[in-house]
Amino acid sequence: MPPRAIRFPSVSLVSALPHLAVLGPGLLGGSLLHDAKRLGWPNVRAWARREETVEQLRAQQLAHLATTDLAAAVQGAQVIVLASPVGSYPALVEELLRCELASQVIITDLGSVKGPVVAGIGRTLTAAGIAFVGGHPMAGSEAKGLAAARPQLFDRAFCLLTPTPDTPPFALATITALWEALGAQVATLEAARHDAIMARISHLPHLAAAAITLAALEGDPNIARYAAGGLRDTTRVASGAPAMWEEILSENRTAVLNAGRELHQKLGELLEFLENRDHAQLRAALEQAKALRDARYPPASS
Amino acid sequence: MPPRAIRFPSVSLVSALPHLAVLGPGLLGGSLLHDAKRLGWPNVRAWARREETVEQLRAQQLAHLATTDLAAAVQGAQVIVLASPVGSYPALVEELLRCELASQVIITDLGSVKGPVVAGIGRTLTAAGIAFVGGHPMAGSEAKGLAAARPQLFDRAFCLLTPTPDTPPFALATITALWEALGAQVATLEAARHDAIMARISHLPHLAAAAITLAALEGDPNIARYAAGGLRDTTRVASGAPAMWEEILSENRTAVLNAGRELHQKLGELLEFLENRDHAQLRAALEQAKALRDARYPPASS
Repeated sequence: MPPRAIRFPSVSLVSALPHLAVLGPGLLGGSLLHDAKRLGWPNVRAWARREETVEQLRAQQLAHLATTDLAAAVQGAQVIVLASPVGSYPALVEELLRCELASQVIITDLGSVKGPVVAGIGRTLTAAGIAFVGGHPMAGSEAKGLAAARPQLFDRAFCLLTPTPDTPPFALATITALWEALGAQVATLEAARHDAIMARISHLPHLAAAAITLAALEGDPNIARYAAGGLRDTTRVASGAPAMWEEILSENRTAVLNAGRELHQKLGELLEFLENRDHAQLRAALEQAKALRDARYPPASS
Repeated sequence: MPPRAIRFPSVSLVSALPHLAVLGPGLLGGSLLHDAKRLGWPNVRAWARREETVEQLRAQQLAHLATTDLAAAVQGAQVIVLASPVGSYPALVEELLRCELASQVIITDLGSVKGPVVAGIGRTLTAAGIAFVGGHPMAGSEAKGLAAARPQLFDRAFCLLTPTPDTPPFALATITALWEALGAQVATLEAARHDAIMARISHLPHLAAAAITLAALEGDPNIARYAAGGLRDTTRVASGAPAMWEEILSENRTAVLNAGRELHQKLGELLEFLENRDHAQLRAALEQAKALRDARYPPASS
């Protein structure tokens, strides 16, 4: 199928608030809807597969139209936000391509892994002449679902966008403006680089938190009663939704394996220092870790 | 040297506030002094090796007597609290044994490792006829030193005591009453069991937090700018004082090595599940970790 011609809107349109359709809102998509409502966004629609979610959206008046009818949700939308789990994108995009879409529609997403998304639905959409901008607002928590959504979740958070050479400049400018309107700080980078970074700063801590919890408590869960703030904070992210995290780790498999093997080796080194009573090396490693950590999170504010 | 006869005080003395001497106050010892002041403790003395620390103690009026003279600090004390690092105990106890001590004096400590303490100065003191009760108030943070000390640090915290068959009942009762007066919840257990538990719930998270920080950021510290709450919390304890933690890990070497090797293996297993695309096993492990973690720290309150 030949790409549809992409028409470039005027600059004024870029800075205006686009008609929005948010598909499958959970914590992130729901928080986006809260903000759109707060900001008086002119035309916001939300789609959910389950009637129960639609009822929640209506009860909270989070959209001008909340519906299980995908075609109705995306009609006239200038920006369509995929807010469902990354694994659901291919089928959802297939459905979308059967809907009537605005000629300049831009599709973006909120998924925390970008390489497979850009290579998957990104290519499909580009081939169909539809602009796609991969997005990842870095605001979440171990809480999950629409019920945990709240206004200003994205305030001062990073939102990482992963355009490709196929991404039309107006699409990147529109999605950038959208996130900035929500108070986020936008940065663009390559999808592969995004995934390598996330593997280290987000997916690795998650994998590690699960392993620490198991090593600490699996043998005798009763000792947890003596645990205080250290174990609590170190394992906090292990409280995240297992199905979601299994998906994230698997979607970012190669980068997570690289980072995870490095952690495995680092931990082995520290244990070797301890085993060999190499106090100087052990202390040097702890000092290096403290320096790296404190540089990002100054102790006074942590 | 034959043990001195230990006289048992009346029950009323146990519940009274004993004359206290706190030696080498930092975060924990200083917080104990803050509480003693708050509670109007009748006779509290503090000793520090450095004149500068004594000046700080005096400026904050944290003791009735603050001095660098050990003999003066412990004169008449019914309870002597070792608040300096565990590694300093042997030399300090040697000095103490040259001082004039009250006949029923009880010595206790605040160290986070108990086996080597009980086997070391515990035995020395018992042989000298002096009652010793190993103690570990589980209230700390990555902050350190007298400047970080504050009132009510121990409120509702666990304080673990590790008596041995040599510990006179009146000594255990007195130290228990002391911690309960400060609002702590006292539990007694064997020193070896204490150390095995701490290895899992405190020392292991510390070692892991250092390894995670190194694996996440050592290669490219600049990616830390994208890190949010997940990395911050998972690595918080890595901000602790390296010298202190090197000492704790080394003092509790065997138990930490046991726990650390289990973590190393657990992490290896998780990576293998990911490597083999064994989604079911990976998800089951994440579910097990979440269940263990949530049982101790219910999500709503974390």
